[in-house]
Amino acid sequence: QIDHFGFDENLTFQQRYLVADQHWKKNNGPILFYTGNEGDITWFCNNTGFMWDVAEELNAMLVFAEHRYYGESLPFGNESFSDSKHLNYLTSEQALADFAVLIEYLRTTIAGARYSPVIAVGGSYGGMLAAWLRMKYPHVVVGALAASAPIWYFGDLVPCGAYYSIVTNDFKMSGSGCSESIRNSWNAINRLSSTDAGLQWLSSTFRLCSPLQNLQDAAILKNWLGETWVNLAMVNYPYKADFLQPLPAWPIQEVCKFLKDPSLSDKLLLQNVFQAVNLYYNYSGEASCLDMSETATKNLGQLGWYYQACTEMVMPTCTDGVNDMFEPQKWDFDAFSEECYRLWGVRPRPSWILSMYGGKNISSHSNIVFSNGGLDPWSSGGVTQSISDSLVAVVIPDGAHHLDLRSRNPLDPKSVQQARALEICYMKQWIEKARRSH
Amino acid sequence: QIDHFGFDENLTFQQRYLVADQHWKKNNGPILFYTGNEGDITWFCNNTGFMWDVAEELNAMLVFAEHRYYGESLPFGNESFSDSKHLNYLTSEQALADFAVLIEYLRTTIAGARYSPVIAVGGSYGGMLAAWLRMKYPHVVVGALAASAPIWYFGDLVPCGAYYSIVTNDFKMSGSGCSESIRNSWNAINRLSSTDAGLQWLSSTFRLCSPLQNLQDAAILKNWLGETWVNLAMVNYPYKADFLQPLPAWPIQEVCKFLKDPSLSDKLLLQNVFQAVNLYYNYSGEASCLDMSETATKNLGQLGWYYQACTEMVMPTCTDGVNDMFEPQKWDFDAFSEECYRLWGVRPRPSWILSMYGGKNISSHSNIVFSNGGLDPWSSGGVTQSISDSLVAVVIPDGAHHLDLRSRNPLDPKSVQQARALEICYMKQWIEKARRSH
Repeated sequence: QIDHFGFDENLTFQQRYLVADQHWKKNNGPILFYTGNEGDITWFCNNTGFMWDVAEELNAMLVFAEHRYYGESLPFGNESFSDSKHLNYLTSEQALADFAVLIEYLRTTIAGARYSPVIAVGGSYGGMLAAWLRMKYPHVVVGALAASAPIWYFGDLVPCGAYYSIVTNDFKMSGSGCSESIRNSWNAINRLSSTDAGLQWLSSTFRLCSPLQNLQDAAILKNWLGETWVNLAMVNYPYKADFLQPLPAWPIQEVCKFLKDPSLSDKLLLQNVFQAVNLYYNYSGEASCLDMSETATKNLGQLGWYYQACTEMVMPTCTDGVNDMFEPQKWDFDAFSEECYRLWGVRPRPSWILSMYGGKNISSHSNIVFSNGGLDPWSSGGVTQSISDSLVAVVIPDGAHHLDLRSRNPLDPKSVQQARALEICYMKQWIEKARRSH
Repeated sequence: QIDHFGFDENLTFQQRYLVADQHWKKNNGPILFYTGNEGDITWFCNNTGFMWDVAEELNAMLVFAEHRYYGESLPFGNESFSDSKHLNYLTSEQALADFAVLIEYLRTTIAGARYSPVIAVGGSYGGMLAAWLRMKYPHVVVGALAASAPIWYFGDLVPCGAYYSIVTNDFKMSGSGCSESIRNSWNAINRLSSTDAGLQWLSSTFRLCSPLQNLQDAAILKNWLGETWVNLAMVNYPYKADFLQPLPAWPIQEVCKFLKDPSLSDKLLLQNVFQAVNLYYNYSGEASCLDMSETATKNLGQLGWYYQACTEMVMPTCTDGVNDMFEPQKWDFDAFSEECYRLWGVRPRPSWILSMYGGKNISSHSNIVFSNGGLDPWSSGGVTQSISDSLVAVVIPDGAHHLDLRSRNPLDPKSVQQARALEICYMKQWIEKARRSH
């Protein structure tokens, strides 16, 4: 159903979902249901090894459901992003309703699944959806594992600078001089970009596919560098991995090896910064130039996510250059709103998500594990202290963005091993309780 | 906000709500919040004396919120019912979001209400909304009193004939020969309406404002009579009252005084049936003729409710003439759907309400009292057995439709007095618990 919440638009669309049932015990064995987030579901499926690792132990079926407007689940095909009319059904509420209806469909159509307890699993925005699915449809899922889900990064629930201060901390701890080098790089760029020769030097030093033409382009360069540091913080995994980009183990430590001396002259400093970002964008060594229009895997649906950020998923961020290594930038809601209106013809409603999902007042819910990595900037908006016996926080001090959802790895730190063990333990409890109540 | 769940329609509308705060204790005294149903809120306000009776004891503020598309809360003014585009925002989900947003608005704008615990109160469809508000927005209301709320009269959760069999039982118990007289009346009408003379006789005997012209009109007559019996069952109160119509105490007993002999000839039987319905429509004695187009107070919004029934509030009913006193009529979803499409251009989605609100699987929620009257046909779809310590059923054997929500009355049966006492007790518990957790 394209619109679950109104009856004027009665069209339906095809939602993609993936099923793996080789370990499933028929007759009501559990189902682990991945609540797909803003990207291609096959990519999430291939990057959520935890579910594959536990399927046998839990005799569980795995289902990965794609989020509407991402991957191949486009309500209006190629027209889905054409205007605000077609985008109108891209909301978390519609996505949750999709999941609830899909789960009921699976239960009635798969032989032996009628009373299968279903556990929602998700990471990042998908983790929010997992938690919210349990909150809003507790009759559909018996529990949820919400990994690295910043459900509180809304309104004024957390300081807007929290996110970037964790990013900064990751760099500060990964090598001396590292965060200071980055902090100093902004003004170095500003100085160089004030002349044409400087712009040319920057373009060639950073091996940019499209050379910088003016100050605006220099702002794009800084923005792109900022996103690079942020992404590195998210994927600062303890082993070689390919999530947003192919990267070595502990990539921030690798990057910081180039950024030891913050007091260098502008050009020497920025040459080092290039070495650092080149490691992120060109670990394979195959790139002939660096493309500022992309900072991460194409499997993420940037367009759709930007629309969501422009409507209900308003996450205020800011930097001050003191508690973080970025150029100072206040959170400017009005400018953001204007930009959203210009792009999509919509206005964000920043308080709606709090009215809908309760903000910090969620104690009457149950059976949700919130896991967060201490290295993950998103942990600043996550639930990092248990709220009750059944709303449990699991903190993984040396984990980046939903490390716990990744496959077991010999280089996993103890903390993520323990976190996964605890998560499995809760899942078993929920399954057991559901079984008893039948 | 006209559309809480989409961002393309960004218009707002004025929602009416009534506030009574003479007994309210500032600094976080509780708020009893009436979740308005399908009618003018002033009428519900004047017919929910229970809230007025307990305000002082609880030091509570009373708020009565009007449901969108009813009374004066019309999202598009006079255009609100013009077509399916304008009607698109008439759903229970939008209404619940209105309530949640309104409560947060009140909490932030009324001095001293910041941490006021709010309890949802409602009857009938309003009772469903009260329960659903607690289920979906437990961060907004600490508990709910759902009076005579048939939250299970959907899908196949209850037999479709349950409703009419309770109506029948009310008549059966209120006088010998009563339900049999009504059961026999249908064929008497069928026989008479086969001739023009008979139609004329029926028109004058029933003092109809518009005379019957043909068999179709005779069907309207039967439908109107059926609705009359149904309405009598709902308002079978133990004292003189004016809810749907001005009526004497125990009106079914009064009506049944005319319906003692089911074996009379067609005309004598129907003359008695006229006396019976005349008591319902003309208790004041002022009506010069009876108007079949209206069976109850104008304060109810029939048009809006029919649209809701045609979309998500699909409540299947049927009669068999054996377990009930009505003409046999199967539940015919397809015909119903066609009629909805003809009238509004929409198709009902009968399973959505179950996916949304959980059907019978609601045990993970808390703090809801479901009250039901044994005489009330809607009790057939209500929660009449407690589900848990905090999902409590209160049954009032000699109560009709939400008798407990009415003002205290010297003629109240013991059972409703006890029910109210229990309801107050639970409210106090919820308030106390909310206070302690602060």
